[in-house]
Amino acid sequence: MTIKAKPILGITMGDPTGIGPEIVAKALATDNIYKICMPVVVGDANIMQQAVEIADVDLDIRSISKVTEAKFEFGHMDVIDLKNVDVTKLEHGKVSAMAGAAAFAAVKKVIELALDREIDGTVTVPINKEALNKAGYDFSGHTEIYAHFTGAKDYAMLLVYRNVRIIHVSTHVSLREAIKLVKKDRIVKVIELLNDACKKLGVQSPKIGVAGLNPHASDGGLFGDEEKKEIIPAIEKTRNKGILVDGPVPPDTLFSKLKGGWYDGAVAMYHDQGHIPLKVIGFIWDKKTKKWKSVSGVNITLGLPIVRTSVDHGTAFEIAGKGIALPDSLIYAIEFAAKLVSN
Amino acid sequence: MTIKAKPILGITMGDPTGIGPEIVAKALATDNIYKICMPVVVGDANIMQQAVEIADVDLDIRSISKVTEAKFEFGHMDVIDLKNVDVTKLEHGKVSAMAGAAAFAAVKKVIELALDREIDGTVTVPINKEALNKAGYDFSGHTEIYAHFTGAKDYAMLLVYRNVRIIHVSTHVSLREAIKLVKKDRIVKVIELLNDACKKLGVQSPKIGVAGLNPHASDGGLFGDEEKKEIIPAIEKTRNKGILVDGPVPPDTLFSKLKGGWYDGAVAMYHDQGHIPLKVIGFIWDKKTKKWKSVSGVNITLGLPIVRTSVDHGTAFEIAGKGIALPDSLIYAIEFAAKLVSN
Repeated sequence: MTIKAKPILGITMGDPTGIGPEIVAKALATDNIYKICMPVVVGDANIMQQAVEIADVDLDIRSISKVTEAKFEFGHMDVIDLKNVDVTKLEHGKVSAMAGAAAFAAVKKVIELALDREIDGTVTVPINKEALNKAGYDFSGHTEIYAHFTGAKDYAMLLVYRNVRIIHVSTHVSLREAIKLVKKDRIVKVIELLNDACKKLGVQSPKIGVAGLNPHASDGGLFGDEEKKEIIPAIEKTRNKGILVDGPVPPDTLFSKLKGGWYDGAVAMYHDQGHIPLKVIGFIWDKKTKKWKSVSGVNITLGLPIVRTSVDHGTAFEIAGKGIALPDSLIYAIEFAAKLVSN
Repeated sequence: MTIKAKPILGITMGDPTGIGPEIVAKALATDNIYKICMPVVVGDANIMQQAVEIADVDLDIRSISKVTEAKFEFGHMDVIDLKNVDVTKLEHGKVSAMAGAAAFAAVKKVIELALDREIDGTVTVPINKEALNKAGYDFSGHTEIYAHFTGAKDYAMLLVYRNVRIIHVSTHVSLREAIKLVKKDRIVKVIELLNDACKKLGVQSPKIGVAGLNPHASDGGLFGDEEKKEIIPAIEKTRNKGILVDGPVPPDTLFSKLKGGWYDGAVAMYHDQGHIPLKVIGFIWDKKTKKWKSVSGVNITLGLPIVRTSVDHGTAFEIAGKGIALPDSLIYAIEFAAKLVSN
């Protein structure tokens, strides 16, 4: 059956006060998406109807309750309708407990559908942490919600933009806390996850660069000892397993070399060490129009029992509801989810 | 007098086992340099003779002992000759105490010349810390040597590439130590230094973005409290002084916005927070030739009683002595020194 060759992907609507619903509408108005997958949106159908109007795209909303009711036809949007938002009570760009609860419910539902194998992979758009907290959910982000409901322990965040692939030893913790998480076993795990992901994304013998934690990778121990105590032993262990690993590389040259193609992937020791270079490369700000010209990285959670990709930007409250948000990163995230499911 | 309009700049030779001497030779073989300044090299004349041969440029070396003996003629290189290297005993790419001592002596001499107002500004090329230490000098880099001999307390490192200007709250300390240095008074000082430098570099009303320390600038206190306790109070204080300051900005969007022209300058809370984006933007690695195509940032020490600019790369031992090192960053550093002296 030809139709089965395309994976079914569940796409959340995100926080309905942010740009999530409108970028979903824009992405699903791209016929290429329907060539690579069978998308189904998880969220509130009224919100998605409003989003179609905001995005000014030509899509019919189909409110459904099960994946088996979806028709996956371009020009229509199948929405697993959770019926949990009162559109008249929502304001774009404003944190709301109702929005937080609805965003959370969509994430929870898409995870359940994937665990039950009703869908083949999941794609998420931005939620707002403050709204989550207001709604009574104490999670720092999607990744933590996914870990909770899938029971995953050794997961990690991979950011991808073209051939730039960066995995993170830690993410949403203070920098002070992140330093404490630079431990040999964890580094070994993320090197292995990155190596596997590069292969799934089509790189046959991935060459991996591992960053130091300290300036100049500590310059032989002059500034900090985490390289000697944790990072070098982790590199040696994975090298002995046959992985092509280099490092610890001074953080301020590693990512220039990664961008230039020296490495197929890099290991960042903390959130911003990886996020700063990825976004400097993948986000293009246009001074004249005062808008992002391109926002096209993708965020992949590795180490989960299900596939999850995501945009790499936030709810962008300042432009939500205006119809100007760009769907580039989401389209990219959908393409990656389809690729990861297929391999 | 026309000739007096051009500043006299002292340029060190750097560690003679690294690429320093050869990039100095290449830079001084560029006639544009002589149009904007009167350069004098400080180091060993025999090393500079060797460098001219390695770089394969057409320059006559003039060994002199005082600045007043310099002729500043294109086609010649005036070298304040410290006569402290035995060329036959040096090997490129190899750490050596003799090289460390000679590199140190050149830096010390150029600082003295500037303090004595015999030259108007100074430009440095890479030295090697291990060689310095072997020679008995316990400094972590040029900046610390300059601070020591000028008695400066509130200095800071500014990196510049085109319109990307990044100042650092701290530099050559471990990341663990750097977190402790994120203090209100220090941040106020670097914001002021950056604001002044932007003006000297021609920006009339600089708009400055200040990074958070933690991911998402702590997301309202969820990950770390340095934003609330130190960074926000510093921003408010400088804003009250009339400086255009924005922040704390999430570190992973600040530098994309800086690159796009939203800000004229940015404050990085630690070495790699600023160095990673600058080098991702300014360093271009060519996968085919396995060489850097462009290495053209400049490093400026602010808060000193004298002008000091520098290249923003290292000794590059792996290519030293081969004549392939690029002088781009040095040419850029000389241009900036001339500009800073003139304003």
